[in-house]
Amino acid sequence: MNTEEMLSFMKRRGFLWPSSEIYGGAQGLYDYGPVGTAVKRRLEEAWASWFVGLSPDYYLIEPAEILPEAVVRASGHLANFTDLKVTCRKCGADSRADVLLEEHGVRDVEGLPDSEISDLLRERNIRCPRCGEAALGEPQRFNLMFGVDFGPTGRERAYFRPETAQGAYLAFARMWEVARKRLPFGVAVIGKAYRNEIAPRQVLFRLRAFTQAELQIFFDPEDFPVPWEPWKGETVPVLRAEDRARGETSARPYSLQDLVQGAHLPPFYAFHLLVLYRFFTHVLGHPDRAIRFLEKNEKERAFYNRIHMDLEVELPSLGGFKELGALHYRGDYDLRRHGEGSGQDLSVTTVGGKKVLPHVLELTFGVDRNLWGLLERHLSQDMREGEEPRTVLRMPPYLAPALVGVLPLIRKEHGELSRGLARELRSQGIPVVEDATQSIGRRYARQDEIGIPFAVTVDGETLRDRTVTIRDRDTRSQVRVPLGEVAERLRPHAVFPRWPGDEGAPASVAGTGQKAL
Amino acid sequence: MNTEEMLSFMKRRGFLWPSSEIYGGAQGLYDYGPVGTAVKRRLEEAWASWFVGLSPDYYLIEPAEILPEAVVRASGHLANFTDLKVTCRKCGADSRADVLLEEHGVRDVEGLPDSEISDLLRERNIRCPRCGEAALGEPQRFNLMFGVDFGPTGRERAYFRPETAQGAYLAFARMWEVARKRLPFGVAVIGKAYRNEIAPRQVLFRLRAFTQAELQIFFDPEDFPVPWEPWKGETVPVLRAEDRARGETSARPYSLQDLVQGAHLPPFYAFHLLVLYRFFTHVLGHPDRAIRFLEKNEKERAFYNRIHMDLEVELPSLGGFKELGALHYRGDYDLRRHGEGSGQDLSVTTVGGKKVLPHVLELTFGVDRNLWGLLERHLSQDMREGEEPRTVLRMPPYLAPALVGVLPLIRKEHGELSRGLARELRSQGIPVVEDATQSIGRRYARQDEIGIPFAVTVDGETLRDRTVTIRDRDTRSQVRVPLGEVAERLRPHAVFPRWPGDEGAPASVAGTGQKAL
Repeated sequence: MNTEEMLSFMKRRGFLWPSSEIYGGAQGLYDYGPVGTAVKRRLEEAWASWFVGLSPDYYLIEPAEILPEAVVRASGHLANFTDLKVTCRKCGADSRADVLLEEHGVRDVEGLPDSEISDLLRERNIRCPRCGEAALGEPQRFNLMFGVDFGPTGRERAYFRPETAQGAYLAFARMWEVARKRLPFGVAVIGKAYRNEIAPRQVLFRLRAFTQAELQIFFDPEDFPVPWEPWKGETVPVLRAEDRARGETSARPYSLQDLVQGAHLPPFYAFHLLVLYRFFTHVLGHPDRAIRFLEKNEKERAFYNRIHMDLEVELPSLGGFKELGALHYRGDYDLRRHGEGSGQDLSVTTVGGKKVLPHVLELTFGVDRNLWGLLERHLSQDMREGEEPRTVLRMPPYLAPALVGVLPLIRKEHGELSRGLARELRSQGIPVVEDATQSIGRRYARQDEIGIPFAVTVDGETLRDRTVTIRDRDTRSQVRVPLGEVAERLRPHAVFPRWPGDEGAPASVAGTGQKAL
Repeated sequence: MNTEEMLSFMKRRGFLWPSSEIYGGAQGLYDYGPVGTAVKRRLEEAWASWFVGLSPDYYLIEPAEILPEAVVRASGHLANFTDLKVTCRKCGADSRADVLLEEHGVRDVEGLPDSEISDLLRERNIRCPRCGEAALGEPQRFNLMFGVDFGPTGRERAYFRPETAQGAYLAFARMWEVARKRLPFGVAVIGKAYRNEIAPRQVLFRLRAFTQAELQIFFDPEDFPVPWEPWKGETVPVLRAEDRARGETSARPYSLQDLVQGAHLPPFYAFHLLVLYRFFTHVLGHPDRAIRFLEKNEKERAFYNRIHMDLEVELPSLGGFKELGALHYRGDYDLRRHGEGSGQDLSVTTVGGKKVLPHVLELTFGVDRNLWGLLERHLSQDMREGEEPRTVLRMPPYLAPALVGVLPLIRKEHGELSRGLARELRSQGIPVVEDATQSIGRRYARQDEIGIPFAVTVDGETLRDRTVTIRDRDTRSQVRVPLGEVAERLRPHAVFPRWPGDEGAPASVAGTGQKAL
């Protein structure tokens, strides 16, 4: 499916639709319908289970979305969180200069100085993408933050956060206490961020309001032990900056050992590449060949990032590899800047008595775009002889909008028992939907389309012998089981995988074993 | 505890702290720490389980937080979502005129015309609450919405939503399809709303960024059947507007029958009062005597509300009864205004062929203030002979930051088994924390303070006979059980209650039994 077909399916099936749609929509904003909301929440929980679950010293917090001006001045966003905008002198349409160039086949635009971009636009005689006239003005820097008057005076400014990470940095001093004054510890945030994008596009890929899930790990740069040795033979596909400089365009597999000993990446960086990679393979179900890490070079990455790799997933609906996550080694930039900005010393004294300004390793994950990626990956056409092709969303059961549909064969006769079973399953922590209308075949088809992996049907036999059928979404096979066994058969499928995704391997990353929550 | 003592406890124990604290804080913004985040998420889930669980035709969605100007013009917020601000001519401090009057003992300020408020301020010679000078200027209307430039042109305005409800109204046409074109159906939203309060106060009570959980029920005013008859003898405490007009200041119990037949409330309104009331008693654990419904009179309520009762809970830390929820019968105001504003006809044709513009019944719930209310209600001092008094947070187990703490008696000896048990419990859907440092007594005390209802201790005996102790937070009693039984003993306590909170009563409200999700 292409972008339009995907979007059309998602609208029709209650995943999402344009926000304020009856008013003609609002560019870059989408609403999640009930099915999309359910999947999004499962995806967020799966992320938390994997990443916050990495260590008992990793914590989920919920900081406020609004940042005082002093915060974004210190973080650098006030001065630098900008894109280059070009406005058409004929029709007034605004475009992003770098995107225009990329669409005209210019490569490696990221990191070019403004003047070069301006020259390129002129040299290539690039026209306005809306009206087609050769009337583009000079590119201008445009800050992407939504700024507001804060308080009633009209003199105070604040900004809706352009990334969730700042809330974790601002909470550092408090979290140092919560973590009982030991490094490393991690602070995760799942929440909204806001960017006044010049030209939102590709539905969930460039939004003006979006959900991030990010983990910031604070550590002593001289002492961040990770259990990478047991994994040193494991490989991850990387397209390294130096390989790109030599004209290479495909990733190749690097073992962790190669990365640490050959490429001189810090072990903690190599290890977390594997953690991130396995989330995409073992939890989201993307195949190895559709994933790669793209290393940014010095010009491309933000100046505070010492190492920066994007995790990209190949999504044909969007034309190729797209960034769905990233791993940033940010050094001491964040705590240093906020220390200076606030006048508070954010360095800490470790157990050994050493004073250290912690470094930050950041794992990012775009929830909305991953929802898109998840659907695209698992949407399939089920072709069977003598049937019309049918859409089946074969996503992992723990990410489905519900684990099971409970369906009375005939509502009047089996409805009561069916509702009782649904209640019982919910009380066992199993996400359930109920559906009692139309033919059982139509109901199965409806559930297949939104990815519900199991259907339990209550029928005449249930009344007689208290057994039900459990139907499997992917094979359509059915088994008959006693009512009392339904919960235990289903429950294992609702469980979120935890790192490393296999049994019997070392489960903890930082693992000091101390944690209040 | 008073407000300051509560806040101090909450800061110390990782519930919350002022946002951007190292920069001196940002008025009206708080960050949730790990314990507060966990409780807040449980509270939101409990709300969804109860209210969305009322009917298979009630759905949870996640609409965008930003509204185009046309939307807030139609909803009336652009013109009317204002407070009266008075500015001190001496020190420049801004205050809310109505709050100032209330603090000076003026009653029933809500609903007074601006000119009367202005007169009252002058007559009573009210001074600036900051500098104490008699220098207050004329009151002025101040719009509470955070407005932003939307898009790069500088010509488009948008607003961060001041309430989550608008997203549900905007989604009406889509949700009508999702609900398979039958009334009634419900649309719930849990999410952030933003208000540029003139003077935020009382910590979580008047915030500039806060979380609402709201259910909008769309119905045919001539046909909204609810199962109120089985409950007609049940009472709810109400302070009615007409009783207040006669000088009454206390609520008195009204049976649903009184409310429907005596006070002529529509059955759907009376029924949902009980639903809301039971959530506060059966789920949150507030005692009957600490709850009341306060009916707003015609001057006090928003003009589009036909019936408006606030659910108030008595909270000594904040000086009395405080609004924690509400039930609004909004008539057809919302769909009519958005129909006119968008030019789309939002009326629908029912199964019987009748054209109807649905009415709205709105159930609101302030998540942050309820978190405060929950902690205040359940915080207690445990006094035992020969012991210092200890703080124990006796909240319902399903709302606790975790259901169980898994504690190895000695980390080196019992840590591995303990981590295995924690992993096993998590895979059974039980929220777990692990804590391996300091004496077992300190760890119990720490868990008691943040309200974790059970502690499982792994010790030498566990290694020998594979049994563990389960300790109860409230009684401190311990039982020894086989490892394999821990999950089934604990799991029932993690389950969110569902309406009606007792067994064996009619469970469904609208109950057409049709639902995709």
